[in-house]
Amino acid sequence: MAEPSLQALVEALRRLPGVGVKSASRMAFHLLQHDREGAQVLAQALQQAATRIRHCSLCHTFTEEEVCATCRNPQRDHGKLCVVETPADQAAVERTQAYNGRYFVLMGKLSPLDGIGPKDIGLEKLFSRAMDGEVQEVILATNFTAEGEATAHVIAEALKQRGLKVSRLARGVPAGSELEYVDLGTIAHALVDRRSR
Amino acid sequence: MAEPSLQALVEALRRLPGVGVKSASRMAFHLLQHDREGAQVLAQALQQAATRIRHCSLCHTFTEEEVCATCRNPQRDHGKLCVVETPADQAAVERTQAYNGRYFVLMGKLSPLDGIGPKDIGLEKLFSRAMDGEVQEVILATNFTAEGEATAHVIAEALKQRGLKVSRLARGVPAGSELEYVDLGTIAHALVDRRSR
Ligand SMILES: [Zn+2]
Ligand SMILES: [Zn+2]
Repeated sequence: MAEPSLQALVEALRRLPGVGVKSASRMAFHLLQHDREGAQVLAQALQQAATRIRHCSLCHTFTEEEVCATCRNPQRDHGKLCVVETPADQAAVERTQAYNGRYFVLMGKLSPLDGIGPKDIGLEKLFSRAMDGEVQEVILATNFTAEGEATAHVIAEALKQRGLKVSRLARGVPAGSELEYVDLGTIAHALVDRRSR
Repeated sequence: MAEPSLQALVEALRRLPGVGVKSASRMAFHLLQHDREGAQVLAQALQQAATRIRHCSLCHTFTEEEVCATCRNPQRDHGKLCVVETPADQAAVERTQAYNGRYFVLMGKLSPLDGIGPKDIGLEKLFSRAMDGEVQEVILATNFTAEGEATAHVIAEALKQRGLKVSRLARGVPAGSELEYVDLGTIAHALVDRRSR
């Protein structure tokens, strides 16, 4: 197929995670042959999400507002702050229904080799949030990978110096895995068993 | 995640074939967190393809022109017309490099149970194309499924009545399979071994 717009579509679909050239072609053919409306709907959804979704000024998660619904919710326990690497990890913790506090989303993890330092993942913002006077415990729920553990360690040290109680999800979560893909029961158990740091 | 534009994006991504709610979420998070430019590029590619890609007035395949590059190519053998169900099937035959004739793309197959009859897949158009005086042999390359076989049968009967030579890809292609997913060697072999009908 030499059609430029078809080739461009296949190339663009390959930017999606887990999509190779074969499934990208299959997707493109499917949309053009059976679901042109779907192509338009998806195009608009992409544009609107990319335009409207920004980061909560308090917790840094995805939101369309200045402050996200979780941060605005008076029912949530203001004394607890759960630190996760990504909005997807936050969603995984939320689905356990075992946590009723608030969140701070790092948008990454410390990775000196890739040149990702404390500023890049918003640690200063986290520290001032944690010191707002309301937070009594910070629960570290970064991934149990080498980088996630290192990030948790750096945050724990800094917050303990500032006199805060810091805990880490229990090691119920299998080492080396990423929260997003862990079953809910394991995450729930690790929340209950979180240990003080 | 209660954000409407994020939910809409996940829903829209699920219209892609083979994408469930889990991978749709993963794709949405990935684009918003790591590749917003990719989201915009994909949105534009979808819109442009859906707008620009139409059907060749001669063979019905996808093209941006009135007549596709294959139909316009004077190097292709005008005496042979290969009938396929979809542009993806046409691309599979092209990749074998074992065929130098032209194509007719049905855009589907006969499926009485789903109310898809001869008009819906453009059989009248195929018949007039096959009777243009140049075509000497029609090679039926519909899928080797029940519906593809039935479609081939109907076309073969109609064209033989009109005095044309009709052949079918040899049964080297495994029964029950779809051309798009068959290895190129098998398709090439089936092209060489096509039998007269
Ligand atoms: Zn927030
Ligand atoms: Zn054409």
